[in-house]
Amino acid sequence: MHLRRLKRIEGQVRGLERMVDEEKYCIDILTQISAVTSALKSVSLELLAEHMSHCVARAAQAGGQEAEDKIAEANQAIARLVKA
Amino acid sequence: MHLRRLKRIEGQVRGLERMVDEEKYCIDILTQISAVTSALKSVSLELLAEHMSHCVARAAQAGGQEAEDKIAEANQAIARLVKA
Amino acid sequence: MHLRRLKRIEGQVRGLERMVDEEKYCIDILTQISAVTSALKSVSLELLAEHMSHCVARAAQAGGQEAEDKIAEANQAIARLVKA
Amino acid sequence: MHLRRLKRIEGQVRGLERMVDEEKYCIDILTQISAVTSALKSVSLELLAEHMSHCVARAAQAGGQEAEDKIAEANQAIARLVKA
Repeated sequence: MHLRRLKRIEGQVRGLERMVDEEKYCIDILTQISAVTSALKSVSLELLAEHMSHCVARAAQAGGQEAEDKIAEANQAIARLVKA
Repeated sequence: MHLRRLKRIEGQVRGLERMVDEEKYCIDILTQISAVTSALKSVSLELLAEHMSHCVARAAQAGGQEAEDKIAEANQAIARLVKA
Repeated sequence: MHLRRLKRIEGQVRGLERMVDEEKYCIDILTQISAVTSALKSVSLELLAEHMSHCVARAAQAGGQEAEDKIAEANQAIARLVKA
Repeated sequence: MHLRRLKRIEGQVRGLERMVDEEKYCIDILTQISAVTSALKSVSLELLAEHMSHCVARAAQAGGQEAEDKIAEANQAIARLVKA
């Protein structure tokens, strides 16, 4: 499912290249870039949600250093997403 | 510690009100708003990191429905942060 | 009008301080922070739109170095907003 | 120049597809998505800056309805970027 969404995003980026190449109107290109950015954010939120439900939950259940490390790692990934 | 940061942010917002009231230069006001927004994001990332280390980790350790609920709730909060 | 919105945002930040002080549930605090961040973004987009319509438009009409400077300055402010 | 950056972004998205296909570690995929999102934002800020310097500046110089329309259109594009 992620793969299909990423393939569509790849197609959108190729569409952007065409628009730039054909010197399409700037604002239309910007609208399309905003759409791609939103699509990428959706994919990353889905991947993160899965990661939390599986990997982080399992590590937390095991406890100890592994749990702390996985949670710290997830927190860093969230910070990167929020700032990207 | 969060309280101190929020008090500083409150002071920055009051500074913004003064700037608007005194009709300060628009770009200077915008620069200051960007600073307040960044400060709020930092506070929220810290709060989220703590929530993950304590509340989510504890629920995951307990397992079951409680674990799933806490993780789903955290994922929704992350999505709101990313989109805010 | 901006002043009124900023005063409301100041009130929301004070509400956040109370929530932290009373150790309210983390997720509820995060939801409130996302609301404040969105409100600040709205104010900044309004201020920027006004700045464009008045200050940038006037400078562009005058032309020359002043026009270039105002547009460069606006572009930098937009970049700060997008990255904040 | 934009075309070259978009081609690199397309390559990064294809890299993401490979990572998903090979079931690479979630956090590494997220890091890469954050990089692509940042790269897209940079391209859009550059395109917008050029649009402001050429199209918006020219319309503002001409004045009248055309100037107002171009500025309103730019403001809407900026809002989409900030919220994307």
